Order: sequence, then C-alpha cells, then structure tokens
Amino acid sequence: MQIQKLKQLISKILIKYNLNKKDAEICAKALINAELVGAPSHGVSRLKMYCERIKKKVINPKPKIKIKRVSNSVSFIDADNSIGFVAADTGIKETIKIAKKTGIAFVGIKNSGHYGLSGYYIEQAVKKNLLAFAFTNAPPAIAPHGGKKTIFGTNPICFGSPTNSKIPFIFDTSMSIINRGKIRVAAKLNKSIPKGVALDKFGKQTTNAKKALSGVQLPIAGFRGSGLAWMVDILTGVFVGSAHSGKVKDPFDDFRGPQNIGHLFIAFKNNLFVKNFKQQIKVNINRVKNIPKIKGEKIYYPGERKFFRKKLNSKKNIKIPSSIKKDLDNLLS
Amino acid sequence: MQIQKLKQLISKILIKYNLNKKDAEICAKALINAELVGAPSHGVSRLKMYCERIKKKVINPKPKIKIKRVSNSVSFIDADNSIGFVAADTGIKETIKIAKKTGIAFVGIKNSGHYGLSGYYIEQAVKKNLLAFAFTNAPPAIAPHGGKKTIFGTNPICFGSPTNSKIPFIFDTSMSIINRGKIRVAAKLNKSIPKGVALDKFGKQTTNAKKALSGVQLPIAGFRGSGLAWMVDILTGVFVGSAHSGKVKDPFDDFRGPQNIGHLFIAFKNNLFVKNFKQQIKVNINRVKNIPKIKGEKIYYPGERKFFRKKLNSKKNIKIPSSIKKDLDNLLS
Repeated sequence: MQIQKLKQLISKILIKYNLNKKDAEICAKALINAELVGAPSHGVSRLKMYCERIKKKVINPKPKIKIKRVSNSVSFIDADNSIGFVAADTGIKETIKIAKKTGIAFVGIKNSGHYGLSGYYIEQAVKKNLLAFAFTNAPPAIAPHGGKKTIFGTNPICFGSPTNSKIPFIFDTSMSIINRGKIRVAAKLNKSIPKGVALDKFGKQTTNAKKALSGVQLPIAGFRGSGLAWMVDILTGVFVGSAHSGKVKDPFDDFRGPQNIGHLFIAFKNNLFVKNFKQQIKVNINRVKNIPKIKGEKIYYPGERKFFRKKLNSKKNIKIPSSIKKDLDNLLS
Repeated sequence: MQIQKLKQLISKILIKYNLNKKDAEICAKALINAELVGAPSHGVSRLKMYCERIKKKVINPKPKIKIKRVSNSVSFIDADNSIGFVAADTGIKETIKIAKKTGIAFVGIKNSGHYGLSGYYIEQAVKKNLLAFAFTNAPPAIAPHGGKKTIFGTNPICFGSPTNSKIPFIFDTSMSIINRGKIRVAAKLNKSIPKGVALDKFGKQTTNAKKALSGVQLPIAGFRGSGLAWMVDILTGVFVGSAHSGKVKDPFDDFRGPQNIGHLFIAFKNNLFVKNFKQQIKVNINRVKNIPKIKGEKIYYPGERKFFRKKLNSKKNIKIPSSIKKDLDNLLS
C-alpha cells in the first residue's frame, strides 16, 4: 500500500475510534515509521489491539494530559491513560523544550501505554542537537535471573547522540534476546522463532511462538540483562509512579484496566561541557569505523542501518500481510 | 593481613609517593573496599601500577582539581590528572550535594584516571536516598561488532537505588563478558581464563590470560554490548571532553602520558515524582524475589550478594597473594 494512503487509513480508523485528528496523525506517523525502519512488529499489526483497548475503555481516546513543571529542568506528565504514542509525543516535546532552555531535561511520564519504538522519540531529540536517553517498562516477558516466571518487561533502553551528519547514532535495545513484537508477529503468521530465545511455560526451550508467548523470554547476557531489566522496572515503574514488578498489563490480552506504563526521558545539550562535541563525535565515529574488520564484515554505528533501511523503504509501498489488511478493513467497516 | 593494618600500609605507600594524607586515605578506602566486596582485581594488586604512574609523572599526586558549576544542577570537574579515586570522590560528593539541593545532578569529570569500582561511588549516593548512574570509559579492550581490533574499554554502566533496607540495589556491569581486571590477575598468577570470553590477537578463542590481554575481549550480548560500550565512549569521552575511540591509555603499560579518562555521574532524589518511592521499592523487591524459582536457585537483587560478601569479609583478614605482598614491601622500601 502507498505510504500516504496507509497513513490516511490509520488516521481515519483512529478518528473513528474517537481520537482527535491531531492525535490520530501522531499515532499514524509513529506506526508508519515502525514499518519503514523494518520493525513491522511495532507497526500496523498493532492497530487492531489499540482500537480494541479504546473500545473496551482501557485506552482513553480523549485524554486530559497534565504537565507539571517540578523544577527548571524537571517535568512530570500524567498521560491520563492516553494511547502511548500521544503520551510519548507530549513527553519528548517537553523534554526537548526544557533541555534547549536549561541544558538538561528530566521528564517522567505515568499512566501511559505502549508507545512503539523508543528510537522514534529519541531521534526527535537528536535532531535538535541533544543527547538523550529513553527508558520504558512493558508487560511481563522476562524472568529475573534464577526465576522461572515472567515479571519484567522487555524494558528497552535507548540512547541517541548527534553525529554531525544526517544519520543519528540511535542505540535501542530491549533486554530480551529478541523483541516480543517479533514473537507476536510470528505467532500471528504461524511462523517459528529462533532457538535459544525463549522457554515454554514449563521452562523448556521452544521455537513455537505461541508457546513462547505463554512462557518466558530469555534476557540478553544472563544476569546482566536481567539486572538491566530490573533497573528499568525501578526507573519507569517505582520512580515514575506507574505499574511495576509484573503489574503492567499485556495490551493484547488483558483488558481489565489501563496498562499504566511509565517512561523516563533524559536529554542534554551536546555542548554542556565542551565546545568541540560536533568535531569530536566525527573523529570518534571515523576512528571506530576504520579499524580492521573481520572478513566480510562492515562496522555500522547503532541506527545507521535503520536509517538506510528507512530511506530505501520510503521510496516503496509498504507490504501489509493479508491477515492484517483484513483487520484494517474490519476496523473501518 | 588485618584490614586496618593494610589500610595504613596503603596510605603510607601513597604518602611516600607524594599524595597528601587525605587523598591517600581516600585511595586506601577504595582499594580495601574492592578487596572486601570480592573484587581483588580492583584492589591492592593495582597499587604498584598507580605508584609507577606517579613516579613516571603521568598521575599527578598533588592535583589542583577545579569544579565549575555550569548551572544549578550541572557541574564540570577538571581532575588535573589526579589518581582516579580522588577525582571520583570529588565527583560523587559534588553530585550528591547538587542532587540533594536541586533534585537532580549531572556531573562530568575529565582528566581523570581509573577509579576502581563504580558501585563504590554509587553506593555513597544511594546512602543519601538518591538514585544514581555512573558511566566511565577505560583503555581499549573490546572490538566493535564486526571489527577485530580493540577500541572500546570495558566501559561499565552502574545504577543504584535505595531499597528502604540497609542493602542497596547496585547494578554494576562492564560491557565485556568478564572484567579486564580478572584477566590481569589471572595473567599475574599464571592462571587460565574461561572459554568464550576473549580472542587472541589473531582473532582466535583463547583461555590464556596473557594472550587475551594482547587480543580482544568479547562484549556481552554481541552487537548490543558493543553498542552499549560505544554509548559509554560517547558519553564519557566525546561529551565530557576526555580521551575516546581507543585513545584512553592502558594504565599498566602505557606511560607516555596521563590516561585522560572521563566519568559521568547522574543522580536524582527518589521523591522527585512520587511520595511513596520507599514503600513501592519494597513492594517491587518483595514481588520479584518471591516468584517461583528454578530448582536450587535463589533470586538476589543486584548488589545483595556483594553486600553479604563484604559483611562477611569485614570480619576477617584480607588474603594477599605473596607476589603482591612483595610488591607492597618493595613500594615502601
């Protein structure tokens, strides 16, 4: 489907589900971005879920988002159970505004929902010459080291930096070996998942996507990934005042209430300490990219391949699997 | 050796090497702490190296450390090539002071050296009811994903949080599968290292500690660990204005100049956004610790086992390998 046409279709669906035009377009842009960077697991395949949550009154399509300025460089946002894209859009705009003014920004967001890809927001800050972090929690997917029940989300950590080129440095990683979204898409399309990334509910390795969803995803780097996921659970759950330690609701199958996800954005001017950041980041990237390579390999910085993928995909139509196309048609009818 | 006696011995040696009494005691406390938490790789085994660097004038024993207050919540410290312990001690004290006053603190430190264990500093902030991050760079040890030459340091990330108990949550991980310090100790004691953690200089797996030191350490979680190490290189190198992209000098065998290591400390009050942090962090830890466990396993939060180890070790003498005891005697003679 043509990109513009798909964007309009998504907006139209969300407006039908009571979002205002501006918010619907914010969501459409974020979902299209996920498709273009090659993360369809975070793209239109999720639209049906968002609409179901609105219908069942666990996403608020007309939120009254409150921004409380805690101090010069700190804001706290109550997203009023808005769709996550709108909460995060509000959050990153506030973060950028504060950081541009005071040099640093520290913004917590509670009562939010799944906001898609962290890198999408961090890229907006990087384009304003800021370095930035995004943390967010997510529904249970990972067991702590030593445990056999999921309690932490995939809890991504994202960091971005200007590079003095048009291709930003965007490092965005979940704490699970593969994204839960990828397992969801595999389950939907009846495909299998790689070995060694998940256990079934009995604690046995599985390549069956559906069994993995009801089991446990394995964290990156064993106890270290487990520790990083716990850190994000504290930062975006306990510290920001949202759900934590296993209480974030799964958006796909738990409609008993809002997800109550929390986010934390931190941003800072690249010239906070030094005047030559732009020159030195270029030196840094050139030096790293030019070291001897393993045969057949190239060295990319985080975000670089995604940038090229998006550039390429932006010239083409977006492929929508027929099962998801059917979902979209149903949502509009 | 008795703990107090060892502490006095270290101080005495460093005073002989021209540190003032206060700074010598700061170093002695940090080195003893490393021994007590079970990280002898960061303990007295390094004293000889520090003294050699002072002797060769690449560590400044009488630094004029300058603290520049950039804004209410931001300070920038020029450590004047002091020994890393003193730079980091100055840095964490400034971080705590600012965060207690304004709610958040953001402190960059340049012209520093190896400061030992990040967790030692973060623990000091956590004891003041702050959540805190520490980032630091380090001499080349890891190759970027796709490369076969070391350029990033082990570049640890450390995060701490109050727990409403006397045992702080301290997550402290380097981006290499094992600490470079452990490989150094193994090389010194002619012991082998585990399989799968390092390559020799020809790119082949090795369990020989000396070959690993001249080769490449493998990052945790492949390209993700490599990306995290690059992130820390940008934050503490490019952003803070210290050496980066392979230019941090190895403290053990590069005496051509100071290391020029950079650190970044970020800290924030636990009640910045919510009033019930202390109650909710207890709920969080209890819930996670009480999930079903893999047979024979317990669930510890990061820092918990280290705390117990330190408590136990504080009642005993510290074992010093004879080769290191000989070093200490030589330093004093």
